[in-house]
Amino acid sequence: MNILMKKDNKETQIEKKIIDSLRGLSIDIIDNAKSGHPGIALGAAPIIYTLYANHLRFSTSNDQWINRDRFILSAGHASALLYATLYMAGFPISLDDLKQFRHIGSITPGHPEYGVTPGVDMSTGPLGEGIASAVGIAIGEEYLSSYFGKKIIDYYTYVLCSDGDLMEGVSYEACSIAGKLSLNKLIVLYDSNDITLDGSLDRSANENIRMRFEAMNWNYLFVSDGEDVASINEAIDKAKDSNKPTIIEIKTIIGKGSKNQGTAKVHGKPLEQDDILAIKSKLNLREAPFLVSSDAVTNFQNMINERCSKLYDKWLDKKNQLDENMQIALDNIINYQDAIKVKDIYYEMPEDGMEATRASSGKILNAIAKHYPFIIGGSADVSSSTYAVLNNEKTFSSSNRKGRNINYGVREHAMGAISNGIALTGLTPFASTFLSFADYLKPAIRMSALMKLPVMYIFTHDSISVGEDGPTHQPVEQLAMLRSIPNLDIYRPCDANEVLGCYKTILETRYPSCIILDRNKVQITDKTRVNEVKKGAYILEEEHGNLEAILIFSGEEVGIARDVYRILTERGIAIRLVSMPSIELFKRQDKKYQETIIPKDTEIFVLELSSSYSWYQFTNNKDHLFNVNEFGKSGNKNDVLQAFGFDANLIADKIEKLLK
Amino acid sequence: MNILMKKDNKETQIEKKIIDSLRGLSIDIIDNAKSGHPGIALGAAPIIYTLYANHLRFSTSNDQWINRDRFILSAGHASALLYATLYMAGFPISLDDLKQFRHIGSITPGHPEYGVTPGVDMSTGPLGEGIASAVGIAIGEEYLSSYFGKKIIDYYTYVLCSDGDLMEGVSYEACSIAGKLSLNKLIVLYDSNDITLDGSLDRSANENIRMRFEAMNWNYLFVSDGEDVASINEAIDKAKDSNKPTIIEIKTIIGKGSKNQGTAKVHGKPLEQDDILAIKSKLNLREAPFLVSSDAVTNFQNMINERCSKLYDKWLDKKNQLDENMQIALDNIINYQDAIKVKDIYYEMPEDGMEATRASSGKILNAIAKHYPFIIGGSADVSSSTYAVLNNEKTFSSSNRKGRNINYGVREHAMGAISNGIALTGLTPFASTFLSFADYLKPAIRMSALMKLPVMYIFTHDSISVGEDGPTHQPVEQLAMLRSIPNLDIYRPCDANEVLGCYKTILETRYPSCIILDRNKVQITDKTRVNEVKKGAYILEEEHGNLEAILIFSGEEVGIARDVYRILTERGIAIRLVSMPSIELFKRQDKKYQETIIPKDTEIFVLELSSSYSWYQFTNNKDHLFNVNEFGKSGNKNDVLQAFGFDANLIADKIEKLLK
Repeated sequence: MNILMKKDNKETQIEKKIIDSLRGLSIDIIDNAKSGHPGIALGAAPIIYTLYANHLRFSTSNDQWINRDRFILSAGHASALLYATLYMAGFPISLDDLKQFRHIGSITPGHPEYGVTPGVDMSTGPLGEGIASAVGIAIGEEYLSSYFGKKIIDYYTYVLCSDGDLMEGVSYEACSIAGKLSLNKLIVLYDSNDITLDGSLDRSANENIRMRFEAMNWNYLFVSDGEDVASINEAIDKAKDSNKPTIIEIKTIIGKGSKNQGTAKVHGKPLEQDDILAIKSKLNLREAPFLVSSDAVTNFQNMINERCSKLYDKWLDKKNQLDENMQIALDNIINYQDAIKVKDIYYEMPEDGMEATRASSGKILNAIAKHYPFIIGGSADVSSSTYAVLNNEKTFSSSNRKGRNINYGVREHAMGAISNGIALTGLTPFASTFLSFADYLKPAIRMSALMKLPVMYIFTHDSISVGEDGPTHQPVEQLAMLRSIPNLDIYRPCDANEVLGCYKTILETRYPSCIILDRNKVQITDKTRVNEVKKGAYILEEEHGNLEAILIFSGEEVGIARDVYRILTERGIAIRLVSMPSIELFKRQDKKYQETIIPKDTEIFVLELSSSYSWYQFTNNKDHLFNVNEFGKSGNKNDVLQAFGFDANLIADKIEKLLK
Repeated sequence: MNILMKKDNKETQIEKKIIDSLRGLSIDIIDNAKSGHPGIALGAAPIIYTLYANHLRFSTSNDQWINRDRFILSAGHASALLYATLYMAGFPISLDDLKQFRHIGSITPGHPEYGVTPGVDMSTGPLGEGIASAVGIAIGEEYLSSYFGKKIIDYYTYVLCSDGDLMEGVSYEACSIAGKLSLNKLIVLYDSNDITLDGSLDRSANENIRMRFEAMNWNYLFVSDGEDVASINEAIDKAKDSNKPTIIEIKTIIGKGSKNQGTAKVHGKPLEQDDILAIKSKLNLREAPFLVSSDAVTNFQNMINERCSKLYDKWLDKKNQLDENMQIALDNIINYQDAIKVKDIYYEMPEDGMEATRASSGKILNAIAKHYPFIIGGSADVSSSTYAVLNNEKTFSSSNRKGRNINYGVREHAMGAISNGIALTGLTPFASTFLSFADYLKPAIRMSALMKLPVMYIFTHDSISVGEDGPTHQPVEQLAMLRSIPNLDIYRPCDANEVLGCYKTILETRYPSCIILDRNKVQITDKTRVNEVKKGAYILEEEHGNLEAILIFSGEEVGIARDVYRILTERGIAIRLVSMPSIELFKRQDKKYQETIIPKDTEIFVLELSSSYSWYQFTNNKDHLFNVNEFGKSGNKNDVLQAFGFDANLIADKIEKLLK
């Protein structure tokens, strides 16, 4: 099938030398760290060599160049091979860095970490996340290319994935989307070695990979010998010409060259000394560790330089030819972690002042998106319920790359992972579903937080008050789940004013965030404050007299909370009402502000229709926590609230009693 | 393609009348509740009719009959149709119950709930979970059938799924496993109506379903007209004869008969009054709601009785013919929520007393499984690391249905959902992966908890102390995520004695549970108590003198905790050391016991390498919580612990200072 290009002997020898140097260096790195995964490094070295030597376009001087080809090592456990490649390719990584592999504080951590190692385009490790986020990168590329033109944005997204990546559900979900969207600049190199951690792949899987991907409208290519660089090359060339995303299944031998090659024994721990020496001898490598052939390094870098050295400068010229507004917009994308300044967020208040926060959110998101073209996103088939849809924008599709609404289908996990990829391109994605289904995308949310990506998760239907759909659709513990994730800001605004405050804060902080919204209408009041949201909490109603107690609430509970406040105030109790749209932001305020809002040694009560796990930090007196700590019930909203004791009079009575 | 069996006109008329009665009753149910999903009820009525009238074997008098065919409504939003069917089929559900649809406290909640409605085999609603758990039911059937013989266990597992179910990653994962295992008694009826909540399916998906399932080694059948009962019948017959699992794609029209049929408008809210009347008129149904043709009911029940009425009694005879031990074993399965009594758990202590709890768990699990044949399970391709494998047992496979180890592959979510299905058959499943990947199966864990299924989740590598693999592999917030789920017991034992206590308690309570285990060796002491674990917490070391402070810890931190205790005791501080393997169990003890262990108004300190969200409930003084509230770091274990300040001297100093 393959028409191989003839290469002269010398060229092949050089190739072999570079590949084997990558192998030798990888096992040195792992051996030195006494920890790591040698199997994939030995097996996949020719693949990564072929990609970096002959295809991947990048700049070692600016690894953040926006128009570089992306490389996502979905099989993150191949980190040693990646670091060896980046070192040999000329990225600012030293041999000393490689010797620090898996040491604390090094730039060569156990799995690739975005923002830590030059040349690493994404944090990977949890299987499936890399390949799924790559779909998002490919979406981002298409959108940016349609916006700035092909001269400015025109890159490929390459993935190296393993058998394990393809078993994860998120890989099916995301690949199904990639096929539907004909993301033809996405090229997946599948290191098909038939071995997983526990043993041979056929213990757990016997899928027909070609059929699987063709069923999803992908282009499938096969390379029978993972050592055959010419065939890998040719397949990548074909993939570039495809009008569909491509997966190239490349048969490799895990731990190639080791005495245990082809078995799970070489997967996850350093090789034995005699094995290392035997491999090195076979490959004509020097015995002593970290002695990389300078010849191999020079040749590798020459090959790369021949293709890449002028790319970045030429691109800079093109960028300078853009008109000024476009240049500013592009810089905005390049410096995507800077605050976004959106003027003129026009918010149309409902006439009766009654509006569900999900509806307010929809309006505000639209108002922002109108002035800021780099927000794109979608929902997991519930945009008609979450209102996370840009009403005046088209759908992103194979025929319209300017579309800003992405139809994720009922694929929550892929939606999260793809949003991470979109954020990695410099765009600001939003992703939406019901709060109780936030569970499905927890792994992706964690990756947003780990990489500190400005993804906006919009979760609606946020408590047992969704009513009839019952316990499967009524979130209870999800807020605690989200709030306990580091590097993630959770907002639960109580009305349109606070929703606006949330969006403003998110665009300013550029922090990974979840906006938690209700299904039911709430009364918008003139007491709520747009600009206090960024402080996390503020006093909604002052106490009358010497402070006796504080009632903290969030979100839709504003109605009951205000009633409780009114009742107790009428009874002469000096209670303060504190709206706390974001615990995380409040905790980031200085002590002084925190104590202004919640003075020490005050009786604290909390009202939120979710697990107490979020609120024990304010009071561990269980009687003071009006929360939900069991699964919900199917019934109409009011009946459900009654069943759980959420009644203003009842709560006021309890508080009064407890204060006595 | 289809060779239709000729039916006489009368038969067809009766069929039509029953199907249309199901339709009419479903929309009455929804209209009366003012909430529900009429679209699928109108579209899929002929499918569910065909299944119940002609295929499904069950007993309306004993809906828990262990050898009944199972029916999993994966598209749980079709609950009204299911309840209408169960009513008409003769299950103990009254018209009044149907009128209470989606009302609080009714037996007809918004989505099907296991244990609430007679005839409902599983709680469903979150898409994908039903079809994935059905794979587990089919696994359980094969295992039980191989154990008790085909005379006792021989049933089919049917699923009705929607487009949305098939978009969820978990459906791919689970179906891939079903294909690999040739679960030919699993039959999926795919209500293929090309519409999802947000609109037409082709907005988000264009997969070739036949290729997809054939790639996964399924049998694919197609019925072009969802009104064609004969063809559906024939397809189900063919499916029963297949040596592979079967999916029957049945083209239906959502909201069939409505003025909005074939659109998303009929998906998720009651139909308009004029529409209901027009449909009823078209179908020759009476206008007034809930007037079901008694003719239709009688005929439907007659058809069912003809097939099913004697099945249960005949089966009882067969059961009585089993030898006594087998009868006892079978009753054990039937009453699977009863405590399991396992004698002779032989636990081999390591000579040096040093053992990682994951290793202790492996030994103990094996010891239990040896005496109790109804424990089966597996891991998501990490059994060589989590030791959750039954060493003397075979692998469950297409050729060995007696195998008790299930190779889930790298498919965590399906592992969870399948475990739920296995538990629904009466077996006791275990499911294992690294704690940081518990994220992937959160939706399935929630379903275990909702249904109170005795699934044992075994999560190892439980903190930043896993070291080199870095933050993606180091759980931080996962314990809080799990502990905040209602109806779920989390255990984090500190050594082999406590591990044994965990398993004993779990087998006794039969509660959904997670066992959290470490990667590193800990010293087993004679202070830890097997039988105290069931109380959740106990005093490991008494204070010397008048109690000044309590240090609570869990798991691997036992080493540092004991050092801190020793150092402070030597310094004359009367500190008590409390081991708390399970917060949930401790909270279920009576107040008296709780205050014996943790007296009121004592200074409480906590040491656990995980998020403080779990521990604020014991003290909300942040300085007292030695936890991890940021993402981990790649490095060797000791370096990582040092970086986070987990050093006995340092902690002892801090506590001493705080006590002054």
